[in-house]
Amino acid sequence: MYVILMYDVGEKRVGKMLKLCRKYLNWIQNSVFEGEITEVKLEELKSKASCFMDKNHDSLIIFKSRNEKWLDKEIVGKELSSIDNFL
Amino acid sequence: MYVILMYDVGEKRVGKMLKLCRKYLNWIQNSVFEGEITEVKLEELKSKASCFMDKNHDSLIIFKSRNEKWLDKEIVGKELSSIDNFL
Repeated sequence: MYVILMYDVGEKRVGKMLKLCRKYLNWIQNSVFEGEITEVKLEELKSKASCFMDKNHDSLIIFKSRNEKWLDKEIVGKELSSIDNFL
Repeated sequence: MYVILMYDVGEKRVGKMLKLCRKYLNWIQNSVFEGEITEVKLEELKSKASCFMDKNHDSLIIFKSRNEKWLDKEIVGKELSSIDNFL
């Protein structure tokens, strides 16, 4: 399964969320990740995120596509993913 | 065509980008938008954004899907889109 995941969390939880998401997916921009992931691994990610998320303020949006081919990605401007390894 | 659009722009250009994107799509989180849009309208949006984007620092990522049904959306935590009308 191919997913695009984006989070919006309080400043104090940004580092934790970033670290968690990078274990499962590829960072592409700001608070946005993408990648192939199994249903089981995605459940694991969501469950771990739920532990520290503030449900009244934080959100995690996940778009799932059964096949990456069904999605076209286009980038205007700077491509961020190449910086990923340096962070 | 169904798109998910996310931007990462310098602070000075955030307001302009937000305003522009809201003319074409629905805001769902932070700097993320989604919605049905025609190829022509999307080109219009991209061309307008390019006018004020700093290509060395800013980025706009667009995921396109021919059919919204090919994408499942899941939200964990707070759903932001409902606040849209108040902003």
